[in-house]
Amino acid sequence: MLKGKQSWVFGNRPVIEASATAVGPFEANGQLAADFDILHEDLWLGKDSYEKAHTLLLEEAVTTAIKKSGSTSDEMQFLLAGDLINQITPSSFAARTLGIPYFGLFGACSTSMEGLALGSFIINNDGAKKLVTGASSHNAAVEKQFRYPTEYGGQKPPTSQWTVTGAGAAVLSNSKNKTGKLVTTSATIGKVIDLGLADPFNMGGAMSPAAADTIIAHFKDLELDPCYYDLIVTGDLGRVGQETTYELLRKYGIPLERERFQDCGLLIYSDDQPVMSGGSGAGCSATVLYGHLLKQMQKGVFKKILVVATGALLSPLSFQQKETIPCIAHAVSIEISD
Amino acid sequence: MLKGKQSWVFGNRPVIEASATAVGPFEANGQLAADFDILHEDLWLGKDSYEKAHTLLLEEAVTTAIKKSGSTSDEMQFLLAGDLINQITPSSFAARTLGIPYFGLFGACSTSMEGLALGSFIINNDGAKKLVTGASSHNAAVEKQFRYPTEYGGQKPPTSQWTVTGAGAAVLSNSKNKTGKLVTTSATIGKVIDLGLADPFNMGGAMSPAAADTIIAHFKDLELDPCYYDLIVTGDLGRVGQETTYELLRKYGIPLERERFQDCGLLIYSDDQPVMSGGSGAGCSATVLYGHLLKQMQKGVFKKILVVATGALLSPLSFQQKETIPCIAHAVSIEISD
Repeated sequence: MLKGKQSWVFGNRPVIEASATAVGPFEANGQLAADFDILHEDLWLGKDSYEKAHTLLLEEAVTTAIKKSGSTSDEMQFLLAGDLINQITPSSFAARTLGIPYFGLFGACSTSMEGLALGSFIINNDGAKKLVTGASSHNAAVEKQFRYPTEYGGQKPPTSQWTVTGAGAAVLSNSKNKTGKLVTTSATIGKVIDLGLADPFNMGGAMSPAAADTIIAHFKDLELDPCYYDLIVTGDLGRVGQETTYELLRKYGIPLERERFQDCGLLIYSDDQPVMSGGSGAGCSATVLYGHLLKQMQKGVFKKILVVATGALLSPLSFQQKETIPCIAHAVSIEISD
Repeated sequence: MLKGKQSWVFGNRPVIEASATAVGPFEANGQLAADFDILHEDLWLGKDSYEKAHTLLLEEAVTTAIKKSGSTSDEMQFLLAGDLINQITPSSFAARTLGIPYFGLFGACSTSMEGLALGSFIINNDGAKKLVTGASSHNAAVEKQFRYPTEYGGQKPPTSQWTVTGAGAAVLSNSKNKTGKLVTTSATIGKVIDLGLADPFNMGGAMSPAAADTIIAHFKDLELDPCYYDLIVTGDLGRVGQETTYELLRKYGIPLERERFQDCGLLIYSDDQPVMSGGSGAGCSATVLYGHLLKQMQKGVFKKILVVATGALLSPLSFQQKETIPCIAHAVSIEISD
């Protein structure tokens, strides 16, 4: 099961039975709107706080994914989830509503793949028959916590990114019937990498070395050729970070074709949306993977993909204390089973 | 591996090769001082912020545990850790220093057993040869974030608890040589339970139903008799919460002998220390288990124990928004192998 230094191979190929997404109004105007299940016109989702709206996004994604999988919440052994909010309260409050035994995770924007990796490991080894994993973020809740009040209208530099309002969730099962289904096949768990960048308005740049480190470790551990995957997609490096990662990978002997190397943060919004370097947030890779990319795979566009979710593990306090930004990336490979 | 609804049985019995603890001055004056590895006289640990001191506690516990296990950091496949600070920066910064592939966890004060449960599952299923898991808290860092500035001298009610300054960590391995060694044998993952308590100065009371729920689920899933364990120890319920849990368990058909039911929050401090209802914090169960209880087991005082770490999943913001306190508890059983 362990392969190489930091990777797992899932010999039993856990099945992604279903996935679902719920997004906010800005994402509903983006490039991938048609691929999302629930589109909200109101950033508040009818709630009296952004945090409650954030909680509801995850609840909706999880319950919709469970429904689409033809199961009930009672059949889910575990929920693995996390977000960016202090003490991950949106995920924990959603877990309260859902009533499923719960692993709270924190990997910032890498949480989606931390959950999918652990969830796949659990299913692969008979730790559950079915489980659900998800990640979420809410632009206004995150802006309020990490940055300036939005009312202040602070200017952002071109390297900054736009936090996605959205949640994505997937139901995994140990089903023996895998033909034509989406399965997870391996995962690589990242180390914390920090090359000394300290600018919270350039997280893509900061996360880039962590993304490259995990991708290099993945190919080394799995002994795969760089062209094995039809698509390698990073979480939310944005324009700046993705370019750096592409160059780093070339330098370290993993030359990828440009069109086979994409970033969820660059896929989700339209060109005319003012998101600077691209989308970000724990909900970015979660909505793009569980909404868009898995549908692309089902349509036959990709057969094998590697999803590398990246996370910047800073806090407002660590920034104020002049710490640099520790970053991490976790990768999970997904294939259509023959 | 899955047994019942929400439990795992570890048939391969992961070995706890070694454990270690690092604590602050207040804990160094407590009842268990002789059982801790590193005792600090200075709450700052020579650092210029409490958060950096917090980080150092975890680094010390992890590196000491690895050293005591006769291994090196390089041999550790994974680090599973978490704490109470926003975005769990102390754990992530420690992971940066340690350079071990990292799973960030958030379960508030239940994190110690969330990590030991997941770590045991990973070892049990050949996901790693060796790994290290730990949890930590720092009284001043937590007071600053969750409560009033300590300089303000706010009075606390008798139901309140004292956050432990300390970190505990354990190295797990898949060693075949288990005779006379500490092994993990099962785990039960908790649901989020919230019976409507909203007072952050009575977390023990709030967490009590979650503790009872997980213990009841454990005995049901594992089909064990209530007297199976020599000791059932909760994480940080304190005087108030522990009493309530004891009564709840009696009510639901699990009558325990009083002396076989203890709480880490009631074990760590001396009677003359002004900790009100007892100790708490992610470092509470971690230091008491990895410092004191495992030594007691090695001395033959207990042969089989069930550790039930409890967590209050609130945040200062969720309290301000008048939310009640969602709570959780995760249980892991540890035995001396014949």
